[in-house]
Amino acid sequence: MTYCVGLHLREGLVFLSDTRTNAGVDNISTFGKMQVEAVPHERVLVMLSAGNLAITQAVWSRLQEGVSLGGETLTLRSVPSMFRAAQLVGQAVREVYAADGPSLSAQGVGFDISLMLGGQIAGGPPRLFLVYAAGNFIEATADTPFLQIGEHKYGKPILDRAVGFDTPLIDGVKLVLISMDSTLRSNLTVGMPIDLLVYRTDSFGVALRRRITEEDPYFRAVSEGWSRALRNAYMALPRPDWLAEAGAGE
Amino acid sequence: MTYCVGLHLREGLVFLSDTRTNAGVDNISTFGKMQVEAVPHERVLVMLSAGNLAITQAVWSRLQEGVSLGGETLTLRSVPSMFRAAQLVGQAVREVYAADGPSLSAQGVGFDISLMLGGQIAGGPPRLFLVYAAGNFIEATADTPFLQIGEHKYGKPILDRAVGFDTPLIDGVKLVLISMDSTLRSNLTVGMPIDLLVYRTDSFGVALRRRITEEDPYFRAVSEGWSRALRNAYMALPRPDWLAEAGAGE
Repeated sequence: MTYCVGLHLREGLVFLSDTRTNAGVDNISTFGKMQVEAVPHERVLVMLSAGNLAITQAVWSRLQEGVSLGGETLTLRSVPSMFRAAQLVGQAVREVYAADGPSLSAQGVGFDISLMLGGQIAGGPPRLFLVYAAGNFIEATADTPFLQIGEHKYGKPILDRAVGFDTPLIDGVKLVLISMDSTLRSNLTVGMPIDLLVYRTDSFGVALRRRITEEDPYFRAVSEGWSRALRNAYMALPRPDWLAEAGAGE
Repeated sequence: MTYCVGLHLREGLVFLSDTRTNAGVDNISTFGKMQVEAVPHERVLVMLSAGNLAITQAVWSRLQEGVSLGGETLTLRSVPSMFRAAQLVGQAVREVYAADGPSLSAQGVGFDISLMLGGQIAGGPPRLFLVYAAGNFIEATADTPFLQIGEHKYGKPILDRAVGFDTPLIDGVKLVLISMDSTLRSNLTVGMPIDLLVYRTDSFGVALRRRITEEDPYFRAVSEGWSRALRNAYMALPRPDWLAEAGAGE
């Protein structure tokens, strides 16, 4: 399994992905799930992947070699817009399905892939997409400024409560780390290290790209500080009147 | 779907369940999922249920009519111990499977049920069990003093971080309400009102049983107070050094 999250904020984009790949619980490996294409002063594109590793790697390899879209062979370095980039990724997924889908199906293996694609290309705004196994896609908007792929449930409550389009970028970084930490604690198939990338709107360069290990002092401070803050927070909540009335609150 | 959670604390047991039952997103009803059998000064047993409503209701009806276990016909009012009560519930599940399983299977419907059973019978300690569709069961221990059935993922992080066997009963009530609130926010198939029951160790009586509606002032205070506390908590976390270094933190 995998957990990847992307934020689409006014100030920029934040991406975070884990690195655990497993084929059964006794076959665990580390594979980065974040791919970046950047042309300084012109474009930054980030792709996060979840699903069958053979499928996600095949999609990425095709994207690097060039995928035919509307009569042209394009890559993420040559597409003219983010919308076309999302179409290109969808097309790459469909090509892999055409090539490998029947054989996978014959072995009883599902075509399991979901991708997140975000970034900015000069001339347009930053955009963030979620591309499905069918090659179609949705886009994050100001109403719901985050997308998740993989094991998304454990890390969703904090995002539901705290992330808005106007959340500052720095708070976005904290929030995705908290969301990841909650997932790591609850699901063994999501594992450290994790990859973080921060992109500031209209910068056309990567502000920060960092692999965070279990020893990272800041991540440990977030994890421990968050647990402490939650304990303090629930203890500070008022007592229910009806509990005292029932004599159960002593 | 459903969300039910039970805590097994030194001071007692806490049970919380939602009331939404749905057959498709356009067919939603309210059904309590908490059943109680109490004999004053002698026993309190609480059963929470998730899964196919016809199956869970059939199990409860059989338990009330009496189920044969070891040559005797017993109910939850007559079993001599909590272990035997869990066996009795498992036996009722197996009887329903024997009666309805083949017909369900012929219609392509899975035998979907999971149950939580907790309480105390004079002569033994409080115990909390999770009974599976096969009729077998596990028990909460001091190491992991909570059990969940149904849509458990959204509400698990707060329990993982905050619940211990020595958590006071009053804090347990707050924590299950927070856990439920997180689930309600993220999953439409879990819905208000919710049913809360608190049992104090060695009391052999129900300390509190309350149906909490959306208008309940305390539940609203918990929900809003918790969102506010989370926002304050992540804002109070320190800024990462490496974000400032990268020039991304302004």
